[in-house]
Amino acid sequence: MTSLPRLPGLPEVEPLDQTLRDELQHIIDTKTKPPGSLGRLETLARQMGLIQRTTHPTVTRPAMIVFAGDHGVAEEGVSPYPQAVTAQMVANFLAGGAAINALSRVSGIELEVVNAGIATPLPSTAGLIDIPIAAGTRNFAREPAMSRDQAIAAMQAGAARVRHHAALGTNVIGFGEMGIANTSAAACLMSRLCGVPIDECVGRGTGLDNAGLAKKRNVLASALARHPVSSDPLDVLATFGGFEIAMMAGAYLAAAEARMTILVDGFIGTSALLIADAFAPSMREYCVFAHASNEAGHRRMLDHFGALPLLSLDMRLGEGTGAALAVPLLRAATAFINEMASFESAGVTNRDA
Amino acid sequence: MTSLPRLPGLPEVEPLDQTLRDELQHIIDTKTKPPGSLGRLETLARQMGLIQRTTHPTVTRPAMIVFAGDHGVAEEGVSPYPQAVTAQMVANFLAGGAAINALSRVSGIELEVVNAGIATPLPSTAGLIDIPIAAGTRNFAREPAMSRDQAIAAMQAGAARVRHHAALGTNVIGFGEMGIANTSAAACLMSRLCGVPIDECVGRGTGLDNAGLAKKRNVLASALARHPVSSDPLDVLATFGGFEIAMMAGAYLAAAEARMTILVDGFIGTSALLIADAFAPSMREYCVFAHASNEAGHRRMLDHFGALPLLSLDMRLGEGTGAALAVPLLRAATAFINEMASFESAGVTNRDA
Repeated sequence: MTSLPRLPGLPEVEPLDQTLRDELQHIIDTKTKPPGSLGRLETLARQMGLIQRTTHPTVTRPAMIVFAGDHGVAEEGVSPYPQAVTAQMVANFLAGGAAINALSRVSGIELEVVNAGIATPLPSTAGLIDIPIAAGTRNFAREPAMSRDQAIAAMQAGAARVRHHAALGTNVIGFGEMGIANTSAAACLMSRLCGVPIDECVGRGTGLDNAGLAKKRNVLASALARHPVSSDPLDVLATFGGFEIAMMAGAYLAAAEARMTILVDGFIGTSALLIADAFAPSMREYCVFAHASNEAGHRRMLDHFGALPLLSLDMRLGEGTGAALAVPLLRAATAFINEMASFESAGVTNRDA
Repeated sequence: MTSLPRLPGLPEVEPLDQTLRDELQHIIDTKTKPPGSLGRLETLARQMGLIQRTTHPTVTRPAMIVFAGDHGVAEEGVSPYPQAVTAQMVANFLAGGAAINALSRVSGIELEVVNAGIATPLPSTAGLIDIPIAAGTRNFAREPAMSRDQAIAAMQAGAARVRHHAALGTNVIGFGEMGIANTSAAACLMSRLCGVPIDECVGRGTGLDNAGLAKKRNVLASALARHPVSSDPLDVLATFGGFEIAMMAGAYLAAAEARMTILVDGFIGTSALLIADAFAPSMREYCVFAHASNEAGHRRMLDHFGALPLLSLDMRLGEGTGAALAVPLLRAATAFINEMASFESAGVTNRDA
């Protein structure tokens, strides 16, 4: 994948500044514990220190943005749930009754819900960031899901939401999504951007049975055959993506630009990262892969990034639930690096003394 | 392994009451999410509901007890750290500077530190639960680590600490440990109680090099050969155990008796569970295996219990750090079951509607 020239208005991502790496490692290694014995927490503390350019990294105003959008391909019957569920679930988010509400509350995460492009009129918009690109995408089994201009507008809108949170002090952010049929979009993005046969990208989504899974595979294989192969990630996004996925891709770029620690959720969230990564490969240095989804194809996508997720809890819900569960681990990483004594300060004899 | 008749003064563990299982499962399945899509969180919520005998389980006053004790076998040079580090680390716990302090603070866990039998005089005892059985165990490379009476006294003392927390309202508890050379004790317990050759039970502990590892294997193989094989878990505990391990074993039993959700930490914590389990196999129904340690042998021990730990973060520190990191996941499980809307209450269309 060749990186694109920068698109106007999209964020710029700097490679991670490595200046403090040795100092951070020394601090971590002289804490009162055997070297390396806090495992992934040590890696997290070092990464967060590098991102924040400090030896005292923090989790400040952690935020979760859930982008919701509808997919024209839903009319092909690729999900066991009707399209109306996208809008119903957004109303559920706004009423506080969904999984991501419960998990955000319990972890002290600021939750924002964005209408990126829902097809059904919303029953309530109180508390909603209502910035739809259109009333759902077109059906990519027949035609491109959106125009290139729509894809760019969505990426810019997603970036703007992140800048809003950056201005409020957020330095850790995760992105979730809601959109009936969006595992179909994500599977096609994955197939094109990772060069993986579609059958290895397609999973049961919200719970297809074997017949439903076979049908989904056929629909997506035909759709991929219909559209010319392109190495331009914007083309791939416009052809198969969703408005929520496009906004999330722009949000990733803005979060890396703002030097946030980015929590990558599951299958859909990682498909959006494929897009962002194609624009700015440095951005993966700002990412923490939160959870290995049970959706088939996610592990293969994670392999693409050489990623080893923090958590593997058999979840496959989306909404950012995997990312939300990683926030306490980031807090634990900052707690140990900021609060633990060193061998010297605690008067503890180091090994082989 | 044949269960022993109950020892006087040791807790009684009832099998987990299954009365609410179907009701809990129905509540979980009608939340606004695809069935099963919250994975391990669903299992946790159901288990906690059964343990607490409620459809509204909670995490109330979560507690962590760190038991510290010294091991005579340390004089064989099985650890890269000198024995004095046990007492120094206990001072560090009491001063708030160890990993378990930082992780307990950040997760809102009540931390208690118990002197179960440290060899070195302690520099400070403020805040310490100072109930040593003796100033360290004897060297099991030469003679049994403790008497049967000491083993029983330690188990009873550990149980008493848990009852103290139960009286204060704790319904979630984890146990940690500190004791130079205690991976040697745990490896021998594992070899005897699981019937696994000692070489598969021995790991690098706090960080032995290859020569140190080979020496540790030789020391432990000789020690095992010196002591007659017994199927009595109290004999095995007295021969190879530590006072911190024995207290932890009694603590497990009391926690199950008090119907707490029990967070099992790493290699040492699981070795103590082998003892408790031999007295009352029902107790494993109250356990959540928190973390798969990097210490060689832990996965094999987990297999013994058919356990799939929640976390796998490459840690190998002990102190209860793995258990502490699981507390936010328990909170997340209770949050979703208590706070999420059902399809019906949220007006969301269920699948295949």
